[in-house]
Formats: sequence, structure tokens, C-alpha cells
Amino acid sequence: MAEQTVFLDGGLVTSPKGFVAGATFVGMKTPGREKMDLGILMSERPATTVGTFTTNKLKSGSVVLTEQHVSGGKVRAVVASSGIANACVGEQGYIDAKTMVELTAKRLGLQPSEVAICTTGIIGVELPIGLIRAGLPKVQLVQNEATLGHTARGGYLFSRAIMTTDRRPKSGAMRVHVNGTDVTIGGCVKGSGMIHPNMATMLAFLTTDANVEPGFLRSALKAVVDDTFNMVTVDGDSSTNDTVLLMANGAAGNRPVEAGTPAAEAFQAALYEMCTFLVKEIVRDAEGSEKIFGVRVEGAKSKQNARLMARAIAGSMLVKSAIHGNDPNWGRIVAAAGRSGADIEESKIDLLINDVVIMEAGRPIVFFKDAVISLMNQPELELTLRLRLGDGEAVAWGCELSEEYVHFNSAYTT
Amino acid sequence: MAEQTVFLDGGLVTSPKGFVAGATFVGMKTPGREKMDLGILMSERPATTVGTFTTNKLKSGSVVLTEQHVSGGKVRAVVASSGIANACVGEQGYIDAKTMVELTAKRLGLQPSEVAICTTGIIGVELPIGLIRAGLPKVQLVQNEATLGHTARGGYLFSRAIMTTDRRPKSGAMRVHVNGTDVTIGGCVKGSGMIHPNMATMLAFLTTDANVEPGFLRSALKAVVDDTFNMVTVDGDSSTNDTVLLMANGAAGNRPVEAGTPAAEAFQAALYEMCTFLVKEIVRDAEGSEKIFGVRVEGAKSKQNARLMARAIAGSMLVKSAIHGNDPNWGRIVAAAGRSGADIEESKIDLLINDVVIMEAGRPIVFFKDAVISLMNQPELELTLRLRLGDGEAVAWGCELSEEYVHFNSAYTT
Repeated sequence: MAEQTVFLDGGLVTSPKGFVAGATFVGMKTPGREKMDLGILMSERPATTVGTFTTNKLKSGSVVLTEQHVSGGKVRAVVASSGIANACVGEQGYIDAKTMVELTAKRLGLQPSEVAICTTGIIGVELPIGLIRAGLPKVQLVQNEATLGHTARGGYLFSRAIMTTDRRPKSGAMRVHVNGTDVTIGGCVKGSGMIHPNMATMLAFLTTDANVEPGFLRSALKAVVDDTFNMVTVDGDSSTNDTVLLMANGAAGNRPVEAGTPAAEAFQAALYEMCTFLVKEIVRDAEGSEKIFGVRVEGAKSKQNARLMARAIAGSMLVKSAIHGNDPNWGRIVAAAGRSGADIEESKIDLLINDVVIMEAGRPIVFFKDAVISLMNQPELELTLRLRLGDGEAVAWGCELSEEYVHFNSAYTT
Repeated sequence: MAEQTVFLDGGLVTSPKGFVAGATFVGMKTPGREKMDLGILMSERPATTVGTFTTNKLKSGSVVLTEQHVSGGKVRAVVASSGIANACVGEQGYIDAKTMVELTAKRLGLQPSEVAICTTGIIGVELPIGLIRAGLPKVQLVQNEATLGHTARGGYLFSRAIMTTDRRPKSGAMRVHVNGTDVTIGGCVKGSGMIHPNMATMLAFLTTDANVEPGFLRSALKAVVDDTFNMVTVDGDSSTNDTVLLMANGAAGNRPVEAGTPAAEAFQAALYEMCTFLVKEIVRDAEGSEKIFGVRVEGAKSKQNARLMARAIAGSMLVKSAIHGNDPNWGRIVAAAGRSGADIEESKIDLLINDVVIMEAGRPIVFFKDAVISLMNQPELELTLRLRLGDGEAVAWGCELSEEYVHFNSAYTT
């Protein structure tokens, strides 16, 4: 990495300059762990906003509208809600998304085309527009600098407003030196257990006060999302509502970051670090999971091959169960690798659990099993598979499959 | 279906005429539920044997050798063992498979090219050829007609010799009228929980005394396997050892069954019924599972689309968890349908749980939840998704995801 990055203590999506946020409770979700259910995030000045969206063929009306507004190039605010996904409700989904955006724009003094919308929660239920209309005026937009204490910070409230089955809000921010200026990248995410096997919305809101050329911002986000958020969801599966938005408002005053420059490289590397941090937070917060693991595939024939294989292993129920039980079951790992569709040659495979070689050139190595079991008994593990077929490399993230996961997911709507 | 089929009480892989089988224990697996670990199945007369094999890129040497022998066209016997998969052991895997086949051929008075081999169990451990050599003479080949009682029947012993984590042996046989003659189809399978999410060997041995033209036998098996066994394994994943063999020895004396005739249709329909029965047995026996469900997709754009979607739904951890909890969570079902890659239009979808309509034309129907929950509290369920886009139809099979599954699979090798 060209430049040093520094993570900020208590970093939030509003840590970058010029962003404000707030949230309230209007009654869209059952008050449980978390009461906030409606939030707004806004750049105080015009911003460049880019995004990536679900590939699910059943899209929420919120996603359809947000894609339109983002491609219009004017978005500088987003309204987000939790409890109701606004998906599988027919035409009403798009109509309600438009209404919610119009109400938010009015509240903020913006044009509707400047506002995006993200909704998450139960599918098949219509948005309670009356409650939203009544609640919007109660959202107070606050910067981080507000002296009201941690829980009153705008970015913190916003990160709580997007939670559904999440056990805690997940935010972060970092500083990186770009074109001679310190710029900040912030972010918060929603997504928990259900992200993992398939659906269940993953939402990510990324902000930066860097001044970044729009074309590069778009390509950087796409590349980073492919390497991070898309490496936790298995087989390209995504929910009806998945959305990643990145807003850049240039408030740091740096010379514009342009493609092909060292500044671009530094910025993209920092964005990758930020998103990796958030992805690990998502996996760590998965329902019933106490343990996460990274699957690094090296020496694959291509990057695409490496991604395919890393995801197949990280998503394997048998591997996830073995991780839960601290079982160094390398047979399950290589069998998942073999069925991933990516090229593999048995006689060339090395497999490592953390830094311990378990298999070399396709043959298991005799290891002291109790030592490896105790090595695996940690909150974070790394499996590395070396294929010796090319330069392709990728990392995927998974969490253990625990009895609690099943228990939790057998009783979600009931 | 053109002809009536009749399931036979206590049907076995040796129910068709001219097949004998037997098994013994040589010490390849820890004596637990099941002691038999080495079995032989043989046709007393020359037979036509066809097969389908794993698509995993890391194949057991046993599979490689069996594919060669089956394509040679002379196979009439198979030796099967459980406890050790003979996979991921380098070149030794193929060498040991050859030795085991040679020893078996000698024991049976056949040529090695007439013998196939199937192995299942732990990966990465070499076959104990010494134990196998010592054990083979102990295998007594017996027909069903033997008067030694159920547990001494050859086909029954053979079905026990292929078990690993299976809770019980799984066999069946049926009679069907073909070209004016009663013919019998028998089968037994190995495969349990682990089949489901991915690896873990699935072995199926099918036998028939029908006289069937080899080319048609091959195409019938392929078509039926695609519609049955391949509809329980998710995304084409398969273990290092998956094998389905079908042996036809003509002992029933019927006029040959030839492609394109009513007899061919009747035979293939019966084979489909037999394999569906065995597939349901596999799913029913999955570790920790008490409940199975079929996912029927109707009106898909193509058969391929229907398969893709049915498998995506049956393999979804969230759907499987919901089935476990008797939760009529249709949102998870349609979200899995939406991400499957198959075409879908929200406004055209109907969804039924058993015969109760839960969703119509893309909108949820108000139903009495407690009634549906109690409806779901049965050992077997059917979900039907109607897409109204074409003629494609497919059924996939899944089992609930229970806490016991996770518990069991966290401690498999340890």
C-alpha cells in the first residue's frame, strides 16, 4: 500500500467532513434490541454518489428507484429504514419508495432526485407511509462534532436505524493521505447471519470527504465490492434489497483523485481496507456465530477461479460446522475446493490452517491433532490453499455454523 | 405412466433375478451402528452396466478405475467398502483400487475388467489392502431366496456394507410389466446428511433383470439421475467418490427394451420411481433430520431453469431452517427463487405449501398462520412454485436444517 492508513477510534459514517445524519423510531419494527428504525444520512454539500446493487431478480422498489437516482448523478442524501423490506409487494413498492423519497427531500430541502432510499426487513409487507410521514420531522441531523455524547452522534444513530437481526451497530472510519491532504473514509453496515447462506439484506453506506473523479470512484467501488462484500455472499446470491452506496463530497479539499495515479492507488487500497473491516464486522455479528474465518486461495489459474473456490469453501456447511467444532477436517476443505468449478490439481495443493501446514503437495502431513485443535479455538482463523497453477488470488469470509444459528433461523417470522 | 409398478415388501438390490451379494467386516471402520464394511454385488450372468460419476475435480482412484471398466462394457460385479474413501492419497489411490479389483475378480472367478469398485469414508487415508485381502474370502454371496432370514440376505448385507454416517440401510425393489413380462428393478443407496450441502459420498447401486438395449439403458440412467439424485445435491456439487451404477442382466427373459418404444417409456418411468424412492430415503436419513420436503417448480421458462430454481430453494439454509421451525416464511422461498439465476416475474408467482396457496400472482395471501404451521408439522412437505413463464418443471428434495445436524457435523473426524 502506497500510503499509511489510520483507523479512527469510534469512527462513524459521519466522521468524514460535511456529513450529517440522524434517526428516529416510527414503529416499523418490533422494539427489541434496537429501537431506531428510520434514518437519514446527508452530505451538506453536493456529492458524487456511486453504488452497487443486488442481482436478485426480485428487486425491492427501493432498489429500483435508488439505482435510477444514483445513475442520475445528483444523489447527496439517503433515507434508510428497517423492519420492512418493501419487497414483494407489487407495484406499491415503487410507489411507496417514491413517496418516502419525496417526503425526505422536502424535509431536507432537496430535490427528490438528490435522495436515495434503502429499506430492509420483512418481505411482503407494505411500508407504513403514514408512520414515516409523521416520523420524518423528528429526525435531527447531527454531525459527529456535536457535544451530545456518543449515543447522540448522528452517524451512530443512523447505524442503529439500519439494524434488523444485527446484534450491534457496525461502523468504522479511517484516515489516509491522498495528494498531500488527509482525507477520511467512513462507513456503516447492516447484515448479519442471514447474509451468509443467502438472502437477508446487506446494506453498506460509505462516505468520504475526498475529492474523487466520478469515473474512478465508480470503478474503485466496483472492484473493492467484488473483493470484499461479494466475497461473503455465496454464489453471487443476494437479497431483494442489497445495496452499497459510496458518497464522496470533496470537503477535504484535496486535488481530485484521478484514475491511474498513486493517489488513486492509495485511495482504493484504503477503501479496500475499510470494506474488509466492515465485512469482517458483518461476519462476526452473524447470528449465533462466535467465530469467523478467512479463506485465502493463492496460485489459482485466474482471479475468477480464486474467487469461485474461496467462496465455495467459505460457504460450505461442512467446513463451517468443522470450524465450529475446532475440527481440522482438511478433507472437507479440499472436497469443497474440488467441486467449486475452479481448476485444481491434487498433487500441487498445499493447505494451511493459520500458519500450520496440514497438507503439502496433495498429501496430508502428520500433525499433532490436539495442537491444531487448540490453535483453531480462536475467534478468527485463516485457511490458506495454495494451488500452484497461476497468479489468481482471493479471500472469502465465513463464519462458523452453530446450533444457535439454526435455532435462531427456525423462528424468525413466527 | 404407461404401466403399473408395484413396490415389493422388503425389496433389495438382489430382488431382481440372477443377482447375488454379500458382505463382511474387515476393520476399515470403527464398529458403531454398523459393522459390515466390505461388500460384493454380482450378476451371475453377463450384464450391461452403465454409470454416472462425480463431477468433482478431485476424484478418488476408485472412481477413475470404475469409469474405465464401465466404459469397457464388461462389468458384472462391484466391490464396495466403507470407512475409507480412497481419495486424496496421491497415485496410491488408483494403485490400491486396481489391487482391490484384482483380488475381487480372483475371488469371483472373473476378469478384473468385469469388476467395478466404490469406496466411501474418510478422505486422505490409504486403503488397508492387507485387511481387504484377508477379508474377501469371507464374503459369502447369497441370493434373496436364501432361507436364512432377513439379516442373512445378500442384498441386505451389501446395503449395510456401504453405510458410513447413515442411520440405517436403504434399499427397495419394484416390479413393472415390460414387453409382456414382469421385470424387477432393485436398488440400495448410501448417503446421508453430508450429501446435502455438499460432499459426502452418495453411492447408488441399481439392478434389474430386464433385458435392455445398452444405448437406451445409458440414456435412461442419465435422464433419471439428472431428475433425481442430481436434485438433492446442490449446484452440481458432488464428492470425490459419487457413483451411480445400473446393472441389467436380462434374466427376466423379456424382449429387449429399445429406445422410443412404450416399453422404454414404462421402464424409464419405473426407474424414475425407484430412484425417487431412494432419493427420499437418503434425504430422510440425513443426519439430525426428521423432516423432508420436495420443491416443485412448475411453469419455468425451461427444464434447466426449473432445476436451477428448485435446487436453490431446497438448498437454502434459511428455507431449511424455516422448515425445521414450521415457519411458513414465504419471503425466504421467493428470495431464493429470485437469486437462483432462473427467470422469474414477481407478478406471476403462485406459491403453495402442500395444497394451501400462500401467495398468488406475486402477492401474499392472508392465511391463518396457526393452521399452516400445524400443516407444516409433518414428516414430509411439498412446496410448489408456479412461475407461468413456460413448460419447465422439476422437483428437488431437501431436508430440514436442525441443531442436531450442526452438532453432528462439528465432530465428525474428532
